[in-house]
Amino acid sequence: MPPANLRRRRALADAAIALLAEKGAHGLTHRAVEARAGVPAGTATNYFRNREALLVAAAERVLELHFADMAAATEGMAGPTGADELIDMIAASLWGAATVLRDRYLAIFELRMEARRRPALEAVLGRLERTAVADTVGLHAALGTSVSEGAVANLATLYGGALFTLVTGPVGAFDEAGVRGLVAAMVHGALGADRDRTADPA
Amino acid sequence: MPPANLRRRRALADAAIALLAEKGAHGLTHRAVEARAGVPAGTATNYFRNREALLVAAAERVLELHFADMAAATEGMAGPTGADELIDMIAASLWGAATVLRDRYLAIFELRMEARRRPALEAVLGRLERTAVADTVGLHAALGTSVSEGAVANLATLYGGALFTLVTGPVGAFDEAGVRGLVAAMVHGALGADRDRTADPA
Repeated sequence: MPPANLRRRRALADAAIALLAEKGAHGLTHRAVEARAGVPAGTATNYFRNREALLVAAAERVLELHFADMAAATEGMAGPTGADELIDMIAASLWGAATVLRDRYLAIFELRMEARRRPALEAVLGRLERTAVADTVGLHAALGTSVSEGAVANLATLYGGALFTLVTGPVGAFDEAGVRGLVAAMVHGALGADRDRTADPA
Repeated sequence: MPPANLRRRRALADAAIALLAEKGAHGLTHRAVEARAGVPAGTATNYFRNREALLVAAAERVLELHFADMAAATEGMAGPTGADELIDMIAASLWGAATVLRDRYLAIFELRMEARRRPALEAVLGRLERTAVADTVGLHAALGTSVSEGAVANLATLYGGALFTLVTGPVGAFDEAGVRGLVAAMVHGALGADRDRTADPA
């Protein structure tokens, strides 16, 4: 079990993520975080000296949660698989991100908008985005599917963009079958260039 | 030339768009709009009775600018064209949206985040998004390329998502060749299902 101050820090960062999702960047203050986390006034200021530190802590907490999820998802994963299995896997990931993890990604997109004016926040989000590409390259390697880094970067851009549309649009605008169709388009499009290059000339 | 009050309304809405792009939704106030547009204090309140009216006016102004651009872009357009010409056209559109029109789309994405909490704003943005799909279906019809509405909707989702990544990420993270590669992936992926369905069995 992590020490008490680490647990409290995480609880404050989780409260910051929930506030970003519910009220937007505008609603994120030390006082609101303390109220949400149910801790005495002044606690958040002890951990995060200003508003930017609070924004950075929320971004770092998302990075930590993402690493934990990736570790759980890739543990004991079977491979290699074909294009249909890859589409199923990415569709399940995108659907989960847009539904179960909706608040986390709403928070990330709020932070993404803020990061244009805050280099310290941009640095953490850049790390998250590069990690997502590196993870995916690693995943393909583990699964025995061979794709270029450029194709994976394109797929990551399309995935992130589609996720923005899904989480910020009206709830219920997409269903699971629609998301699978969208992912099939991304995978065929992004990985098609690699496939064409390696395909036997018929 | 439009009447003076319409011109002033537009100038205020343009100032709102510039503020959203520069400072985020948080920075949009009647006072800041007046300062930006160089008009006397109280002017913006005469046109927009509260902050939501200001947000809605910014969204409506983007819709108006979008219609004007679409009309100019499709005037005298040659058709029909092949997949490569379609990719060139969409890549030029995405590159222009991410560079020349960057502020307009930064403003739109700020509004998109706000719209989750404001149904009146959601209604205007929904109109913009449905228009983008309808425009694209019409464009394909005009160019003589036949694509399903589902494929166009997927392409519009991928385009909008990629635009979010391009305008909110660090400036210079993408170049024109990279954007063309991304668009080639979108077009091949989104329109591939239609192409496969209509292709001659070889």
